[in-house]
Amino acid sequence: MSLDGCTAGPEQSRKDPLGIGGEGLHQWVFPLAAWRAPHGLEGGEVNESSRVLEEELANIGATIMGRNMFGGYPGPWSSTQPWNGWWGDNPPFHHPVFVLTHHPRPPLALDGGTTFTFVTDGIGAALELARSSAGGRDVALAGGADVARQYLSAGLVDEMEIHLVPTLLGKGDRLFEGIDDLHGLRLVRTVAAADVTHLKFVRA
Amino acid sequence: MSLDGCTAGPEQSRKDPLGIGGEGLHQWVFPLAAWRAPHGLEGGEVNESSRVLEEELANIGATIMGRNMFGGYPGPWSSTQPWNGWWGDNPPFHHPVFVLTHHPRPPLALDGGTTFTFVTDGIGAALELARSSAGGRDVALAGGADVARQYLSAGLVDEMEIHLVPTLLGKGDRLFEGIDDLHGLRLVRTVAAADVTHLKFVRA
Repeated sequence: MSLDGCTAGPEQSRKDPLGIGGEGLHQWVFPLAAWRAPHGLEGGEVNESSRVLEEELANIGATIMGRNMFGGYPGPWSSTQPWNGWWGDNPPFHHPVFVLTHHPRPPLALDGGTTFTFVTDGIGAALELARSSAGGRDVALAGGADVARQYLSAGLVDEMEIHLVPTLLGKGDRLFEGIDDLHGLRLVRTVAAADVTHLKFVRA
Repeated sequence: MSLDGCTAGPEQSRKDPLGIGGEGLHQWVFPLAAWRAPHGLEGGEVNESSRVLEEELANIGATIMGRNMFGGYPGPWSSTQPWNGWWGDNPPFHHPVFVLTHHPRPPLALDGGTTFTFVTDGIGAALELARSSAGGRDVALAGGADVARQYLSAGLVDEMEIHLVPTLLGKGDRLFEGIDDLHGLRLVRTVAAADVTHLKFVRA
């Protein structure tokens, strides 16, 4: 998240999936060994952010994301070119992923253990499906901001990690737009790296 | 500043000078010995935030603030009840303070070395006056958000300290509203306290 509260820049598109300037919010993570490993890449850095990312990824059994984060285009899926997401043939999740969408589509099984299941009946249904697929492990809420807001507003978030990047986007998708209540989430841990501050919240 | 980027809550008034919920952004500072001393109060706590506040107050020779932070009511000053600010007979500044306003008014000298001078010809003029009064020491930009935005946008801020409080105001005065450029200000130091994160920016 930027200093002005955006988790993506304005004008998200296939060319700029994170919006203009949005890529800059993620520069801290790309060099990390802990990020490269699940992406099938060797090497990488170890620094103050490593343990934060390792902790975040450690116990995840299923992931929920919005249609926009899965990617592609708005509206119904094309039957000839249905778009398989930003995530490539071997997505970095390696577990079941539930995609919130208004447009039904059969599940999409890819290499490395990631299956995208498309859920059209709302955040509650997606959470139930994710929980029962997670085998007792945690359910991750990957984003984007719109889906995060829906779960936050419903009081369904048990833990939240904000990666605060000391930059401004000016315009963009504001994570907390229209929300004035953290539903009991309290700051429990701060890790200061040179280029990002990690703020962990847990429901009291 | 709140997690959603507000430095004051909505509906600022004489009853709620910091807006609804805005007082909560300052709870970290009130118990500190370093805050109590310039307010003429003895005792107080020493914690991780102390050195941040001490550093912030250490070398200030003059302060600039907006009319709204000086306080009172909008529009021209009353000749019978001109309002002497929120700051009492012995304000905590103890040096010259320059108040940006559209409405002229004679200077106001109070106890303890604080003189409020009312500047009607803009941020550049206020900065010049403050600099020449500061005797080589630093000029502090106290706020509120509107004045901070004006100086930020003009590239006139050399250092910025954000006290990030892990709460949401939902609505309110957004510090960076409409700004997408920090004009070279870069994060140089983070101090994590239990209830606030201090982010110091310095122009590269």
